[in-house]
Amino acid sequence: MSSLQPDLKSMGEKAKRASRLIGSAGPEQKDKALALLAERLENHTGMILAANALDLREGFAAGLSEAMLDRLSLQGRIQGIAQDVRKIASLPDPVGEVFDESVLPNGLEVAKQRVPIGVLGVIYEARPNVTVDVSALAIKTGNCAILRGGSETLNSNRALVNVIHEALNAAGLPADVIQFIDSSDRGLVKELLLLHDYVDIIIPRGGANLHKFCRENSTIPVITGGIGICHLFVDETADLEKALHVIHNAKTQRPTVCNALDTLLVHEKAASRFIPMVVKSLGKDGVKFKVDSEAMKSLKTSEGAANDVKAANDSMDWDTEWLSLILGIKVVGGLEEAIQHIQSHSSGHSDGIITEDEANARQFVRAIDSAAVYVNASTRFTDGGQLGLGAEVAISTQKLHARGPMGLKELTSYKWVIRGNYHVRK
Amino acid sequence: MSSLQPDLKSMGEKAKRASRLIGSAGPEQKDKALALLAERLENHTGMILAANALDLREGFAAGLSEAMLDRLSLQGRIQGIAQDVRKIASLPDPVGEVFDESVLPNGLEVAKQRVPIGVLGVIYEARPNVTVDVSALAIKTGNCAILRGGSETLNSNRALVNVIHEALNAAGLPADVIQFIDSSDRGLVKELLLLHDYVDIIIPRGGANLHKFCRENSTIPVITGGIGICHLFVDETADLEKALHVIHNAKTQRPTVCNALDTLLVHEKAASRFIPMVVKSLGKDGVKFKVDSEAMKSLKTSEGAANDVKAANDSMDWDTEWLSLILGIKVVGGLEEAIQHIQSHSSGHSDGIITEDEANARQFVRAIDSAAVYVNASTRFTDGGQLGLGAEVAISTQKLHARGPMGLKELTSYKWVIRGNYHVRK
Repeated sequence: MSSLQPDLKSMGEKAKRASRLIGSAGPEQKDKALALLAERLENHTGMILAANALDLREGFAAGLSEAMLDRLSLQGRIQGIAQDVRKIASLPDPVGEVFDESVLPNGLEVAKQRVPIGVLGVIYEARPNVTVDVSALAIKTGNCAILRGGSETLNSNRALVNVIHEALNAAGLPADVIQFIDSSDRGLVKELLLLHDYVDIIIPRGGANLHKFCRENSTIPVITGGIGICHLFVDETADLEKALHVIHNAKTQRPTVCNALDTLLVHEKAASRFIPMVVKSLGKDGVKFKVDSEAMKSLKTSEGAANDVKAANDSMDWDTEWLSLILGIKVVGGLEEAIQHIQSHSSGHSDGIITEDEANARQFVRAIDSAAVYVNASTRFTDGGQLGLGAEVAISTQKLHARGPMGLKELTSYKWVIRGNYHVRK
Repeated sequence: MSSLQPDLKSMGEKAKRASRLIGSAGPEQKDKALALLAERLENHTGMILAANALDLREGFAAGLSEAMLDRLSLQGRIQGIAQDVRKIASLPDPVGEVFDESVLPNGLEVAKQRVPIGVLGVIYEARPNVTVDVSALAIKTGNCAILRGGSETLNSNRALVNVIHEALNAAGLPADVIQFIDSSDRGLVKELLLLHDYVDIIIPRGGANLHKFCRENSTIPVITGGIGICHLFVDETADLEKALHVIHNAKTQRPTVCNALDTLLVHEKAASRFIPMVVKSLGKDGVKFKVDSEAMKSLKTSEGAANDVKAANDSMDWDTEWLSLILGIKVVGGLEEAIQHIQSHSSGHSDGIITEDEANARQFVRAIDSAAVYVNASTRFTDGGQLGLGAEVAISTQKLHARGPMGLKELTSYKWVIRGNYHVRK
């Protein structure tokens, strides 16, 4: 199936127009569109899977990895995706909320009112479920979206976007609320990044290279994030049995994601007891280790060899997001050194301390400026669902607008509403 | 006085280091630095004015306009600047505030804590008072700043930054908290815009060209704004005498600034009575008019000629920020047409309705998505001081992070602080 080259400027104009309509739509109408979307996803499962099968066949022929093909596949997943849409519909609508109300001494009534951001530009990779997920979040928050998915998923995305358009129309909303760049031409990504007259925010969902590309080429503000070089520091007062449980969870529960543990820092007074425990326990589950010379000393040579323990490369290994069953281990002299190491090597995503010493916990929280700072918990909680946001658009590691998991509220802005009685400025 | 070419990367590194110290400094220490700064500004007035005189002499020789020389001059202004610094010191410190606290069903304690943004890059033009103003705001909020002022003010800025450094040191804070690009090389602005490893936000303070340059060249998020094509719509139900008072204030109180009125929209049923009132009253104060053909019809030829009323150029005049005593006037069929005109031509800064009809006021507020939306008040109130923020860093017309006047809180971000009892993710 071929299509005309998409005209990005015209897509931008359509999105801007549609954003006025969806932006002032009430919660009932938006939730109706989402209910219809969930229903249609289920009713059109056959058509969607047929399109998805085309992508899978082409991907297989092109030699995509098992992992890539797995991400691409919608087999057995449509029902879950529809349920996620229903869950988003059930959340409260943040748009219209009035806050920071006050009456100034001159009688002016001042308030802020929550409004949609406007038009989202979302750039992602081979996961077609993101197409539905982001569209549902955009509709819920009164935003338009221009989507650019991975080229491996063109057929699946085309089918899904058709269903989304039907649901929007059936709810009396314009199809232009969700637009899809139906082309694998990479030049169009760059064009999207320059549409600052129409697009208000760029949300990249993918690896470090995608984030870098967006930052370097966009004239639109980019939410960067998603890169987690995460640390836990085990203080000398930590309960080591319980600490081991947390470390095990942070490293092994889902090692391929950004909030998984990368580097374990151990207080020198706990090192000789704790590091062998970690190597033995996590080694059983296939974790391999990169350790500094002090950590190496705490291990018997036989333990090290049996558990694939290697010497860490100081100039590289502390700055690597492993995204796999590898754990860096480093012994530190105490809290200060742990803080310094994290300040130098963290990507500002999720870092924590395991301690029974409240003063140390407080000092750690004060000094570490990461999106999520933990005391006695696994870094795996940095997630919109886990932290009670109900939904997650992205995880931001930059400082503007939103930091850490972004939910519905983070897809809104505000306007000032000022009411007077023919007030003039003195 | 010559200086070595500044090394921007090294400035960035120093700022990042200093930001850890100022970021965790308590309110007393930061306020002490501000009190010392105010005192030293007053004590060193002679030295500062001598440096300023050099800039004025060079500016005069280079043929700068009266207006530019006036902006450049610190003569008689140091005391006021010192008082502004004391006022900033007296405001509450937003850093450290804990909000959105909750305990999740699994017992995790989750909260957000307000933190400084980190390092601000501020690019401005010929006003040396901005050097002190921005530095004081940065110090108060625990941020570092790298300043790049106009090349016409190098001597003044050098003198002011010396005083700032003395105050920081005397309060036990590093001088690197405030750094100043001591060079008129324009290439350094571009270098600053690429320092995303060290600088968290770019705040341009200047005209449309500066904002555009920053947006197009920066890999750091830019707060764009400051461009105001502002509208007031006078509805048929408005009290026309009072409306005239508001229009007069919005246009003439300070016509050179972004929140001054640019285009007056008048309901067709009020046009024949109101437009002659406006032309007569504002004409007396030197306002000139660009009016559409319907508005022209409401004026006698002699009135128009006497008050410098010209036909508006439809393709240009509705998209111009006048920044002077020019007012566009257009007759509209009613609320809907007024809204459409504003949606097409507003820069999203400040737009309002003058009406006695509450339903129309509500519809206007819902439909107009500008940073500040007014009912029965002058657009001149879009200002941090006027709206109760105590201080103003900039006025944002973009949708991310902050919109409208930005005060101290808008110079902060937040981090998530999550406390558990050795919690792991299920």
